[in-house]
Amino acid sequence: MSGMEQNQQKYQALMQRLGDVFSNKIPFHQLIGFEFDELSAESCKISFKKKPELIGNFVHGMLHGGVTATALDVVGGAMAAAGMLGKNLDASDEEIGRKLSKIGTIDLRVDYVRPGKGDSFYAKARLLRSGNKVAVVRMELHSDDDTLVALGTGTYMAG
Amino acid sequence: MSGMEQNQQKYQALMQRLGDVFSNKIPFHQLIGFEFDELSAESCKISFKKKPELIGNFVHGMLHGGVTATALDVVGGAMAAAGMLGKNLDASDEEIGRKLSKIGTIDLRVDYVRPGKGDSFYAKARLLRSGNKVAVVRMELHSDDDTLVALGTGTYMAG
Amino acid sequence: MSGMEQNQQKYQALMQRLGDVFSNKIPFHQLIGFEFDELSAESCKISFKKKPELIGNFVHGMLHGGVTATALDVVGGAMAAAGMLGKNLDASDEEIGRKLSKIGTIDLRVDYVRPGKGDSFYAKARLLRSGNKVAVVRMELHSDDDTLVALGTGTYMAG
Amino acid sequence: MSGMEQNQQKYQALMQRLGDVFSNKIPFHQLIGFEFDELSAESCKISFKKKPELIGNFVHGMLHGGVTATALDVVGGAMAAAGMLGKNLDASDEEIGRKLSKIGTIDLRVDYVRPGKGDSFYAKARLLRSGNKVAVVRMELHSDDDTLVALGTGTYMAG
Repeated sequence: MSGMEQNQQKYQALMQRLGDVFSNKIPFHQLIGFEFDELSAESCKISFKKKPELIGNFVHGMLHGGVTATALDVVGGAMAAAGMLGKNLDASDEEIGRKLSKIGTIDLRVDYVRPGKGDSFYAKARLLRSGNKVAVVRMELHSDDDTLVALGTGTYMAG
Repeated sequence: MSGMEQNQQKYQALMQRLGDVFSNKIPFHQLIGFEFDELSAESCKISFKKKPELIGNFVHGMLHGGVTATALDVVGGAMAAAGMLGKNLDASDEEIGRKLSKIGTIDLRVDYVRPGKGDSFYAKARLLRSGNKVAVVRMELHSDDDTLVALGTGTYMAG
Repeated sequence: MSGMEQNQQKYQALMQRLGDVFSNKIPFHQLIGFEFDELSAESCKISFKKKPELIGNFVHGMLHGGVTATALDVVGGAMAAAGMLGKNLDASDEEIGRKLSKIGTIDLRVDYVRPGKGDSFYAKARLLRSGNKVAVVRMELHSDDDTLVALGTGTYMAG
Repeated sequence: MSGMEQNQQKYQALMQRLGDVFSNKIPFHQLIGFEFDELSAESCKISFKKKPELIGNFVHGMLHGGVTATALDVVGGAMAAAGMLGKNLDASDEEIGRKLSKIGTIDLRVDYVRPGKGDSFYAKARLLRSGNKVAVVRMELHSDDDTLVALGTGTYMAG
């Protein structure tokens, strides 16, 4: 097996490990019900259903803005983590664990563009800068019919 | 009863109605467990316990950043609503209902200053501008020992 | 001349008038030296040279972050104005003047992604929401070799 | 001379050096005309006159929003630098120079609260977090009669 194939295998194993942590080990992700559909060093995507307890506006049954902010923060953080892993394929498991544990949101901006109508939603992230210290990510939340609901920009500690 | 006393009574009734809506009628507030401790035209305060399902970092048991963002958005929105009500004591019930239904977050910035350690948290809001169209609010999240955990700035449709 | 042709003519006249105001009537735009390259209801673009007095970091001769913020705010405001005009082709000149005078930045976020190297820069804006009250715009600043230097998101009063 | 006195002297010398750099070595600061009134590890304050070329709204003669953003960014950056220096009194001159050269704005949020009327303005900054990597600063711009014109929050590389 060539070095490139080894790195490719390691990359896929790391993304799987990251997806497992985000899906199964973080209590608040399970409370909301996030599913991680895509996790790569280029882009990330999560989705969730509008369960009744996620509603904010009880008259019109719309998604609570806090769920929107959470979804954008989560997909942005996953993106920052995946981007960092993609740059550190040669690092030891210990080093990777240490770097992952340091990833965290520095700040987050959310723009609420349209009301959160629809039965399910997906959020996507794109890495705009992946520095040694800080990652900058732009995110979007859409309803299932592809309507843009909210925009986000996040700055993350990159390990 | 003087006009001023009537307005004072109406103000208190409106704040009570607002507190009731925010505490009991919004499903996601009940999922998180927000309590509304203070609601006036000058400042607002909410608090909540760190239930296990609100945890993000499972290694250190810290509050999820999405809960932080939600708390800041909620106390900021309550502040925008209370500020608007304080300026509209002469409006009819119908007009007030119409204005309340239009309040919504335009955008939100969250700065994560320190990790969310502690057993319970409180968030406070201060109204910095209350225009006819837009309200600007600054918020802070503290843990129960008064450590500053996060800062927020929100812009809200003011009805 | 058909109604559609009339509207098309009016649209072009309005964009020209807007470009003239932004280029020639605003002192700080002339101090920096902004040129308005593109002004339509869909997108806007401005450009400027890195004159010596616009430098911030005197060691490396890089663009001052305040110039970056200004360029993003200006192209975003032009976008909000052009978007509003595009929706109000049937309005009277008086009404259009009244609406234009009310356009203003509510808030602005700037992300500094890379240092401002290069001899000239251009900033582009895209309208993400054009409501009756508020417009949301995303902006980017690039250097002349197309390197992304900064990102912006702005919320504007839409008249 | 005691160690504490030596540190006090060094602190004052560093603040003076920082003030000199910000006032005299940065071309764009001189174009706008910023004066540095206060520079300490606790708070910073700058002021400037509304020269005709800093006007945005030519009808009402109000300060351009880009000048507002610049003033907030500059006082926030000075605060981040002063806070960093205050924590590194024992570092060598070389180390301090290295750290200073790395300070830069990561992102900035500006809230435009009231129109920029008045003949002169001052901006103040308060350090809310001074970490090893990132500093978080809140800023305010006031006109000379103490009217709040704009709010800012900035995240800075802390060296």
